[in-house]
Amino acid sequence: MNAGILKRLLEEVREGRVGTEEALDRLKTLPFEELEFATVDTHRSLRQGFPEVIFGEGKTVAQIKAIIKSLLKHGENVLVTRADGKKGRELKKAFPRGEYRGAARTFFVKSHEVQKAGRGTVLVICAGTSDVPVAEEAAITAECMGNHVVRLYDVGVAGIHRLLHKKHELMTANVLIAVAGMEGALPSVVAGLVARPVIAVPTSIGYGANLGGVTTLLAMLNSCAAGISVVNIDNGFGAAYVASLINRK
Amino acid sequence: MNAGILKRLLEEVREGRVGTEEALDRLKTLPFEELEFATVDTHRSLRQGFPEVIFGEGKTVAQIKAIIKSLLKHGENVLVTRADGKKGRELKKAFPRGEYRGAARTFFVKSHEVQKAGRGTVLVICAGTSDVPVAEEAAITAECMGNHVVRLYDVGVAGIHRLLHKKHELMTANVLIAVAGMEGALPSVVAGLVARPVIAVPTSIGYGANLGGVTTLLAMLNSCAAGISVVNIDNGFGAAYVASLINRK
Amino acid sequence: MNAGILKRLLEEVREGRVGTEEALDRLKTLPFEELEFATVDTHRSLRQGFPEVIFGEGKTVAQIKAIIKSLLKHGENVLVTRADGKKGRELKKAFPRGEYRGAARTFFVKSHEVQKAGRGTVLVICAGTSDVPVAEEAAITAECMGNHVVRLYDVGVAGIHRLLHKKHELMTANVLIAVAGMEGALPSVVAGLVARPVIAVPTSIGYGANLGGVTTLLAMLNSCAAGISVVNIDNGFGAAYVASLINRK
Amino acid sequence: MNAGILKRLLEEVREGRVGTEEALDRLKTLPFEELEFATVDTHRSLRQGFPEVIFGEGKTVAQIKAIIKSLLKHGENVLVTRADGKKGRELKKAFPRGEYRGAARTFFVKSHEVQKAGRGTVLVICAGTSDVPVAEEAAITAECMGNHVVRLYDVGVAGIHRLLHKKHELMTANVLIAVAGMEGALPSVVAGLVARPVIAVPTSIGYGANLGGVTTLLAMLNSCAAGISVVNIDNGFGAAYVASLINRK
Amino acid sequence: MNAGILKRLLEEVREGRVGTEEALDRLKTLPFEELEFATVDTHRSLRQGFPEVIFGEGKTVAQIKAIIKSLLKHGENVLVTRADGKKGRELKKAFPRGEYRGAARTFFVKSHEVQKAGRGTVLVICAGTSDVPVAEEAAITAECMGNHVVRLYDVGVAGIHRLLHKKHELMTANVLIAVAGMEGALPSVVAGLVARPVIAVPTSIGYGANLGGVTTLLAMLNSCAAGISVVNIDNGFGAAYVASLINRK
Amino acid sequence: MNAGILKRLLEEVREGRVGTEEALDRLKTLPFEELEFATVDTHRSLRQGFPEVIFGEGKTVAQIKAIIKSLLKHGENVLVTRADGKKGRELKKAFPRGEYRGAARTFFVKSHEVQKAGRGTVLVICAGTSDVPVAEEAAITAECMGNHVVRLYDVGVAGIHRLLHKKHELMTANVLIAVAGMEGALPSVVAGLVARPVIAVPTSIGYGANLGGVTTLLAMLNSCAAGISVVNIDNGFGAAYVASLINRK
Amino acid sequence: MNAGILKRLLEEVREGRVGTEEALDRLKTLPFEELEFATVDTHRSLRQGFPEVIFGEGKTVAQIKAIIKSLLKHGENVLVTRADGKKGRELKKAFPRGEYRGAARTFFVKSHEVQKAGRGTVLVICAGTSDVPVAEEAAITAECMGNHVVRLYDVGVAGIHRLLHKKHELMTANVLIAVAGMEGALPSVVAGLVARPVIAVPTSIGYGANLGGVTTLLAMLNSCAAGISVVNIDNGFGAAYVASLINRK
Amino acid sequence: MNAGILKRLLEEVREGRVGTEEALDRLKTLPFEELEFATVDTHRSLRQGFPEVIFGEGKTVAQIKAIIKSLLKHGENVLVTRADGKKGRELKKAFPRGEYRGAARTFFVKSHEVQKAGRGTVLVICAGTSDVPVAEEAAITAECMGNHVVRLYDVGVAGIHRLLHKKHELMTANVLIAVAGMEGALPSVVAGLVARPVIAVPTSIGYGANLGGVTTLLAMLNSCAAGISVVNIDNGFGAAYVASLINRK
Repeated sequence: MNAGILKRLLEEVREGRVGTEEALDRLKTLPFEELEFATVDTHRSLRQGFPEVIFGEGKTVAQIKAIIKSLLKHGENVLVTRADGKKGRELKKAFPRGEYRGAARTFFVKSHEVQKAGRGTVLVICAGTSDVPVAEEAAITAECMGNHVVRLYDVGVAGIHRLLHKKHELMTANVLIAVAGMEGALPSVVAGLVARPVIAVPTSIGYGANLGGVTTLLAMLNSCAAGISVVNIDNGFGAAYVASLINRK
Repeated sequence: MNAGILKRLLEEVREGRVGTEEALDRLKTLPFEELEFATVDTHRSLRQGFPEVIFGEGKTVAQIKAIIKSLLKHGENVLVTRADGKKGRELKKAFPRGEYRGAARTFFVKSHEVQKAGRGTVLVICAGTSDVPVAEEAAITAECMGNHVVRLYDVGVAGIHRLLHKKHELMTANVLIAVAGMEGALPSVVAGLVARPVIAVPTSIGYGANLGGVTTLLAMLNSCAAGISVVNIDNGFGAAYVASLINRK
Repeated sequence: MNAGILKRLLEEVREGRVGTEEALDRLKTLPFEELEFATVDTHRSLRQGFPEVIFGEGKTVAQIKAIIKSLLKHGENVLVTRADGKKGRELKKAFPRGEYRGAARTFFVKSHEVQKAGRGTVLVICAGTSDVPVAEEAAITAECMGNHVVRLYDVGVAGIHRLLHKKHELMTANVLIAVAGMEGALPSVVAGLVARPVIAVPTSIGYGANLGGVTTLLAMLNSCAAGISVVNIDNGFGAAYVASLINRK
Repeated sequence: MNAGILKRLLEEVREGRVGTEEALDRLKTLPFEELEFATVDTHRSLRQGFPEVIFGEGKTVAQIKAIIKSLLKHGENVLVTRADGKKGRELKKAFPRGEYRGAARTFFVKSHEVQKAGRGTVLVICAGTSDVPVAEEAAITAECMGNHVVRLYDVGVAGIHRLLHKKHELMTANVLIAVAGMEGALPSVVAGLVARPVIAVPTSIGYGANLGGVTTLLAMLNSCAAGISVVNIDNGFGAAYVASLINRK
Repeated sequence: MNAGILKRLLEEVREGRVGTEEALDRLKTLPFEELEFATVDTHRSLRQGFPEVIFGEGKTVAQIKAIIKSLLKHGENVLVTRADGKKGRELKKAFPRGEYRGAARTFFVKSHEVQKAGRGTVLVICAGTSDVPVAEEAAITAECMGNHVVRLYDVGVAGIHRLLHKKHELMTANVLIAVAGMEGALPSVVAGLVARPVIAVPTSIGYGANLGGVTTLLAMLNSCAAGISVVNIDNGFGAAYVASLINRK
Repeated sequence: MNAGILKRLLEEVREGRVGTEEALDRLKTLPFEELEFATVDTHRSLRQGFPEVIFGEGKTVAQIKAIIKSLLKHGENVLVTRADGKKGRELKKAFPRGEYRGAARTFFVKSHEVQKAGRGTVLVICAGTSDVPVAEEAAITAECMGNHVVRLYDVGVAGIHRLLHKKHELMTANVLIAVAGMEGALPSVVAGLVARPVIAVPTSIGYGANLGGVTTLLAMLNSCAAGISVVNIDNGFGAAYVASLINRK
Repeated sequence: MNAGILKRLLEEVREGRVGTEEALDRLKTLPFEELEFATVDTHRSLRQGFPEVIFGEGKTVAQIKAIIKSLLKHGENVLVTRADGKKGRELKKAFPRGEYRGAARTFFVKSHEVQKAGRGTVLVICAGTSDVPVAEEAAITAECMGNHVVRLYDVGVAGIHRLLHKKHELMTANVLIAVAGMEGALPSVVAGLVARPVIAVPTSIGYGANLGGVTTLLAMLNSCAAGISVVNIDNGFGAAYVASLINRK
Repeated sequence: MNAGILKRLLEEVREGRVGTEEALDRLKTLPFEELEFATVDTHRSLRQGFPEVIFGEGKTVAQIKAIIKSLLKHGENVLVTRADGKKGRELKKAFPRGEYRGAARTFFVKSHEVQKAGRGTVLVICAGTSDVPVAEEAAITAECMGNHVVRLYDVGVAGIHRLLHKKHELMTANVLIAVAGMEGALPSVVAGLVARPVIAVPTSIGYGANLGGVTTLLAMLNSCAAGISVVNIDNGFGAAYVASLINRK
């Protein structure tokens, strides 16, 4: 749209109806939005294929519904994260073709099929059963973003053989998401075994000196293994988003 | 080397000099290292092309020299990080063909040429001039690991136009490393402009409420922009390592 | 009132009914309140035109009602902050001409019209929709204190173009209040664009490493941009009060 | 400078040497810097009269000298902060007409006289003698920025009468900067006495539970008095900058 | 009781039925309790006159009732602290002659009159109305322990004249308890005015950077005024206990 | 089982049906699980005699029931920890021969008698009545793991004689578990009296500066007495597990 | 001095040279200092007999000397705290009749004899030899303030019998100062043995999880024993000051 | 010595020179030390065979020498910990038969041979070469206390195969000490492999978010593996002491 404004101005200059000084002044005072459209468009197009994502926590069902409706109109796929059971049921009622996943607390409504587009597998590993909700948030998000996802759950470092048994899955993944609470040692061990980027997700699982996941977070940031980067506590979505960007062709 | 041991055992079995029961026992009691070579080898080969890296802080020059010598013998490229000026000068004297970079506090000795191997550009962005040492540690490391690196320095968010001017560099990078101290806002702004993974590196630049970089670190983990993952404070090396894994073909 | 006491004493001295020594003694032992009236009066008169403000959190509706009644008797305008929906409804019932704003959690009862008195515009900017309640507390408070207020919401730094589009509002404001949660980068970017004081309000919006807004607060205090000062987490009222003092003619 | 580029382009359009479509393309692909000059210029002009400021800590004397020289060439006044005694002496030797203030750790070189331009007095108050360096950094900075500055030192709250004695200075200031370490109570008492904005500066003076000034900072953010905003620990410069913006006509 | 055991042993020695060596052995192996009775008795007698105190939080009404009954049997006065409204009503029903104070959350049952025994007045000062429950816990506790208590409430430092008006009460107190939340500046100002010990009680009143009273606590510990010692957050009882010990003749 | 796979391979080699090179390849690609069986089995057998333990917090009754059933089928004893009253009652209904202990929040179902197997007594000491739930979790766990357990409750350091009276119990214990909240001084005093290992368990009992048990935890880690090691806040189970390992013959 | 001003004014009123209205105006505008002298004087006189105290840390020897000289002129006793060995030697040279105590880092110059004036003994107890400097600072300060001081050193809780041996000293003290680092348990044990106020002084002795004394401080604030109040880390002076106020007749 | 006093008293009783009542009184008023010798003796004898240990940090060489001399006189073995190179050399000069270990910063002087007395092996494992000093402090201490010690160094979890190779050492140890910095994952992995108690020692090795070892400490306390207890940061001595108590027959 902005191109139109600029073009008209340039035509007026060419036709001599607007002097160069005046044109210069008008260019200077054009709102920023008129000049920077390129950024916006490019940006959006690069993200093409990713669904729009709604952070469901702290929003009412009514608010979420309104946003979903608006996005569906534009033909977007829509992913809601952090939607508890009650919200999930109400969203399902409102958008029956949507899919609610209780374990992941996600609700996904498609306008079009998700195209599998990644370079390889996104492997989601988690340490304990209590970490599964965060791991599932990551796994579902990654799937909705077009990745082939493999899950490897309940392979905590206290029973290291369970993890080592899964050599094939570890070795063939293109990106790994390692979800763990408590001491958060899983990403260190995993990154020592593979040669691909590991995204560490600390969870708030733990008590006492766990400090709501802060201990886990800090421990992961101090990993003795190279190849790890970290996202916020319980941020399965964020890890999947990074993994999807990495995994894009 | 372990393959040799196993092969000899198998040949003895084939030749009947060792019974299957005895071979089984010997296999069971072989130290783990004999059995797991696959992991080790695979692992190493996948990493092929990366130099060996020595964390120079807290090691004496004598210790560093010894490790370098041993690695050069095996034909490895060797990168020393966190080598202050004094260490740098001594290392340069000992290994004259090595290259010391004062700004980055790195020393690099090549056994063979580094092969440029990445899918695209690794863009290292930093906010202030005080953040340059960490940015340079990242940039040099990424170069030593075979990436094409572009630097974009002194583009802090308080003068947002300086960053926005660099649209081309931002848009064409395959992986971005955003280095910042103080409030650590740079990665948020950058990740809002691009569609590739951003690795955020908090630095310990700041004072008072900066808490030695902890504030910066926590702020980055709370970024409102998707597509960001974070490494430890001042960990330029770690960011470059992750970036290199992402950028590998 | 205290002036009367002093005057009577001085008259007694003049008339010779009280000796100077005795008068001196009585002056010395007068309670502080008799001597310091000037402070109190001057102080109040300087603040003239600002409403009285009641912090509604932790007070019962009955308590709030009683304070409002008492203040209305003295002809004051009264602003209640942190009044949740239930409290708001009950206050509205008790004072029907009062105005309850749910988004801001404020209740305002006027004894007299608010006089617009500021030197210019107070611009309230906020990063995300979750920050709106705090931003609205600031905006409503500033309005009740006689300022012309402009709102600029949902202009987080992850979509920097949305903020840059609003050049006019940014450039013409006399004081700016920048409200943000998570990494709290908004004030840094804003202060880099304008040449007026920016009051930063961290919100408790975020999770995990956000630490209930402490991360946001510390990040804002470490801003790389000059011209920023900070108030307590979620303290929209406090920011508006400072802004009003700055904006007074 | 950028205006020239644009003007040339517009003239070429007017003269028919460049078509509108081509001009449009060139406008779109111009680096951001070409388009946003307005911001930059406006911004700078609004700040007119303020000196350029160099944060001296962590920079070598050579680096500082180079920056000063470059700025003096452009006719700027230059203020160096956080310059310890040794740096101060070397800077004085290099720029003999500059003025070094040991207590404030500032060095100021004028290209032109500072014009007194504020609406009123900036009052710098500090609690203890150990807080003087930070207070002086604030006072000198405010003076260099064209304000009339009054100092009120050693008026801690443990001897409240010393503060109360200075009623006149308190009542006539347009902006107040309250500098304190330890429990940081000074701004609360001051803000309760005046009706103008108070900028609180916590210092790192204290020990043990003071936590390097963090306790002071947090206490100030929790002030029971309205009208206070806070800057980072020991940030005398930042407070003066905000005060100067407030005090501008 | 233990005296009996010892006496019997000594008599056996005197009567020659037990040799000195054997007696020595038996003395050595006597359990500790037999030897240390003196401590226990002395200790108790020194505390004579203080009521027994039950910390009501986290105990059921049934548990509290049982302890009260047992203590009343021994003729003790009993003070229950941290008893919310519901507990208070049930205790009142069970012990009708007891007195429940809602503001202080205390329940007091007397077996005998409390003897006024202190050297002077215990002055309980508090900053804001939200601090009253903690102040009242202190005041009631001090009264139950035989002190003459004077209350001075709502004299926060932001309105310093209110505090200064109360010169007489401040100057005549023997011990002062200063209760405050938020920035906790009250004890500093008070200790600067008086020449008696001030016990500072931080409250958890505040939000955001108050960190549940930790900021207030740390600020109080950093007071620039001498003569202050501090107790735990909200610990009105503890302050009153210390004050009572100080005030004993 | 894995031994079978290896044996077959070796037989094939011996019989010449598989060449050594091929056998080598197959050995390299055998999943980890085939090679590491020994670890797993040995590990389990060493733990023999300990019950399986289910952490009940955050699991539904249905989940707990399912796990119990599965474990009972394998002839295991099963201990559930952190089962509140409601869960306890439901578990008791489902497994009537199980034993629920309200104070300890444990539920224990036996498949076979627990064999008393320790070298000596495990002494569980706790400071206050509020610490009893954690102490009981430790005591019951230790009993279920075959230890002879002695309890010593309500022996806080503020009444040191109560602890000193119990010389016999202290001196004869083989391992001691010291449970305390608040300042956590108990383990220091205990370790100064005995010559056996003391496991310190901080509890979350306390308020204000206790920080949910973190203060207690840190204090215990700083004990001036040798012979103490520490587990997580409220981790009675963990302490008992360590004590059981120590106490095993 | 101020009395003179007032008296003159009153005499002028009496003599009719100044009217009452004018006198009233002049009274109102007299600086605060003229009116509040009573406070100041009373205050000082109440403190009579205490030396003036100079906090030596962060002051140069020249600064300290100047303050001492000025105070000696007014006939005050002067106590310097936190004076390291070098400062001590220089002060001794400058004021040869002064006394430097290396262990306590104090320097004391008398203008007149210190009068023993307390109600009883101040007992200074410390846990370890590393805590002695802080304990000595407290002991010397208390002595300089006119108290009879008894020292009880190296009686940590890990060897509880050493403390219990000193029953007499414990039982006869009027105020107790308990100095300890590490887990800080000493005040709890002491307060459980005596019936007088205990002032707890945490020291920064410890490492790792001690956090520079913060752990010790927090632990002391959480003491399970009543009768304890706490001062800042290493604040031996502050404890002695409070103790002296308590111990005054 | 105390036995003498008691014996004389008993003899006087036997001989009729002292009545039982008087003897009783004298027993009651005997200082504690006279009565409690039993504890002390028993205590000491239980610890028999352990050397006396001097914490060298913060003590001068002169002080250490004096303590060593005194202990050698009593025939004790003496271990000095935290003795840096300079101290070590001076101690070696003073006590030539003592042994200084630079890596461990220990100095050991024997009065008599150390008797190997443990039930089994104490295995000291450490993650990185930087952790060796702490590991060596543990190893040397354990050896000086009579244990058979095995070292397993540089087996961090990022190269898990190095640890797994050492199955024999892991499986045969009676007590394990796991020393690690950074994320501190080693004890979790180790405790998952063995069935004996693991004492975790966090080190201060790391930077940034490591917070001087606090992150490592907290992570270890949150281990997902049972069988772990933790000591203070860098407390190799403390771990060895606990291990020695566990390993005693």
